[in-house]
Amino acid sequence: MKIELIIIGNELLNGKIKDKNIHWLSVFCHTNNHHLTGVQIIPDNKEAFNQALNKSLKTAEVVITSGGLGPTKDDLTKLLMAEYFSKNIIYSKESFEITESHYKRGQRIYDPEKVDYANIPQDFFPLFNPTGYAPGLGFKINANQSIFSTPGVPSEFQSMIAETIKPFMSSDTEFQKHIIFKTWRLPESKIFTELAPTLWEQLEQFGEVSSLPHLLGVDIGVKITNPINEKKVIDLVRSTPINDFIWNIGPETLEEVIIKKAIDKNIRIGFAESCTGGLLGSRITDISGSSAVFWGSIVSYSNEVKIKALGVQADTLNNFGAVSLETAKEMAQGALNKMNLDLAISTTGIAGPGGGSDEKPVGTVGIGIATKDSSSSEIYHFKGNREELKFRFSQMALFKMLETINSL
Amino acid sequence: MKIELIIIGNELLNGKIKDKNIHWLSVFCHTNNHHLTGVQIIPDNKEAFNQALNKSLKTAEVVITSGGLGPTKDDLTKLLMAEYFSKNIIYSKESFEITESHYKRGQRIYDPEKVDYANIPQDFFPLFNPTGYAPGLGFKINANQSIFSTPGVPSEFQSMIAETIKPFMSSDTEFQKHIIFKTWRLPESKIFTELAPTLWEQLEQFGEVSSLPHLLGVDIGVKITNPINEKKVIDLVRSTPINDFIWNIGPETLEEVIIKKAIDKNIRIGFAESCTGGLLGSRITDISGSSAVFWGSIVSYSNEVKIKALGVQADTLNNFGAVSLETAKEMAQGALNKMNLDLAISTTGIAGPGGGSDEKPVGTVGIGIATKDSSSSEIYHFKGNREELKFRFSQMALFKMLETINSL
Repeated sequence: MKIELIIIGNELLNGKIKDKNIHWLSVFCHTNNHHLTGVQIIPDNKEAFNQALNKSLKTAEVVITSGGLGPTKDDLTKLLMAEYFSKNIIYSKESFEITESHYKRGQRIYDPEKVDYANIPQDFFPLFNPTGYAPGLGFKINANQSIFSTPGVPSEFQSMIAETIKPFMSSDTEFQKHIIFKTWRLPESKIFTELAPTLWEQLEQFGEVSSLPHLLGVDIGVKITNPINEKKVIDLVRSTPINDFIWNIGPETLEEVIIKKAIDKNIRIGFAESCTGGLLGSRITDISGSSAVFWGSIVSYSNEVKIKALGVQADTLNNFGAVSLETAKEMAQGALNKMNLDLAISTTGIAGPGGGSDEKPVGTVGIGIATKDSSSSEIYHFKGNREELKFRFSQMALFKMLETINSL
Repeated sequence: MKIELIIIGNELLNGKIKDKNIHWLSVFCHTNNHHLTGVQIIPDNKEAFNQALNKSLKTAEVVITSGGLGPTKDDLTKLLMAEYFSKNIIYSKESFEITESHYKRGQRIYDPEKVDYANIPQDFFPLFNPTGYAPGLGFKINANQSIFSTPGVPSEFQSMIAETIKPFMSSDTEFQKHIIFKTWRLPESKIFTELAPTLWEQLEQFGEVSSLPHLLGVDIGVKITNPINEKKVIDLVRSTPINDFIWNIGPETLEEVIIKKAIDKNIRIGFAESCTGGLLGSRITDISGSSAVFWGSIVSYSNEVKIKALGVQADTLNNFGAVSLETAKEMAQGALNKMNLDLAISTTGIAGPGGGSDEKPVGTVGIGIATKDSSSSEIYHFKGNREELKFRFSQMALFKMLETINSL
């Protein structure tokens, strides 16, 4: 089904909070064979609301609105919805009862005098909220179009769609598979010009082609509708020089591929982190099942901790500095020994904005690699702000980890 | 100025990537006294493009489009833009030269035969791209409206707006200050009904009021236009029972408040993390200047590392389990000793989806607190998926850290 999302809320437009629902919904739609055709973020006023709804109803079979359903006076969705569809607001016993059940779950008593969840627009139906107090709203506009309103809080938005609203959406069933080639160390502009100038046209015979540049890599996608073509597409890409730059065929993330391969090879992994501050450990532990191979990470932000917890030599720090090939190597070795690992990767760099020098500018990072048989280290330079640099450092460290796991 | 953003790209709608530009632009606009009035995410086809542009041009003084400017065949922005404004595509010497300068910076030679960046719609002007190869596009539609197109890659989008496009936007100068009261441990529905039933109306005398629920807290905002009212608003909120639940007045994040207070009191802080996997260290080190007080974090995902790197007793783990008051306390004490800290906070919990039991379900977390004088621990229960739980665990740990810093 064609789905449109309207996010109502000034706080997303004035810098106060980051949206967490768009990506979730795009994955939900993709997984359930629905088609997210558009997203609009609008301020909470009538004119913006009406314009957005007009636009969404041009294409959507299901419109989802998020936000503006709470108990405070800036929560206008219910009123705007009633006005848009010319409905009176009336008492709904069902809405009262659903709200009461939400409050009971939270060990509280619902008082309709204080919070007005029991009155809803006529012909609308209330929706059970698996994680919050406010009920959602649903309305069948005509034979082909429905609208659902949910709170904007991510846990409520997501659980309401996955549990309460999903049954209202019927799935398309046409076979469609998205084959994704994940590459790294290739600029996008080189792939389809210098390395494989005819590849795009060749792939287009099998389905829609896309090219998506990422930090340190490019994803090439082909959407096939006939399963028989999967092998042909893979063989075709594999026959070009791009083959050498592919680190995964499939939607899996770098973290997922690392965990899977480490489990396959029974390799205990861990980190010694300085500039990444724990991001490497956090990214790896986002993956369920990581505890099978991820032993730990020693985040040594201060030199004192590098010495005490990792066993880096004070002389090394004094002679070469914290951001150096030597320190990176000793950090990785230290993590290997202190945590009894098979493979340790370290990061020590300058994420900025302060702390850079001519010799070691902001963006410099040392990455160390230690296994039971050998250890080494490398220096890289990246650009970006503090958060971007932390992520780029961690991305390069994870690539080095994957490379090393592949070689073991 | 009124700004509208149109994001062009199927990959944001089909679950492939997460947007990273909306929040950045909302903060940029807020900081520079511009007004982001709406965001649309659309697929890369003509119909969606035309509809989105029609809608944005109804309100915007500046329309920014992102995406679809790259070198591959699914990059359609230039063509769609030319068609929308009925322009021919013509050779631009300026665009050639700007592109050439981008390539030179990347130590590459620009070949216009291979990548078509030199031809642009008539009357458009090319825009310097501080971090990528593709030039942006600008066009003055009429006396009051302009449109700018940038690549979607966050580093390029952001640097192009902050450096190249910003000078085209004139700022509004009306005084406006957003006073934000950050609270925790209060459900939103209680604040304006039970605790302070008349507060909302009272605050509305001074400006627009908003209420924004967060994980473990609610932000109450008041936008004042007269600086004389700042103290009145603060005194008013402080005079209600909400005062006891405020942990900050201002836009600062929990991480920023912790770092600032730890610096003020000269307290070395650090963590012993299990279930949060490094997230605590990573969140704290997102703050520039954190190295003044953040010493490190020992991420002990396996029991082996809890014993070896933190000195947790094997007996404690055997008798009480990894997720227990006893282990949480020993982890915090271990971090304090091993890293020579003044304050250590630990987390040990079950982020799921596996690993839960009747006694200790998914969402259970032990949080330990150790200072030189005392140590303690507490057990909490949260709901959510793996990533949400990691974040909630880390949020509670940071609140405990702030509370302890306040008490030292």
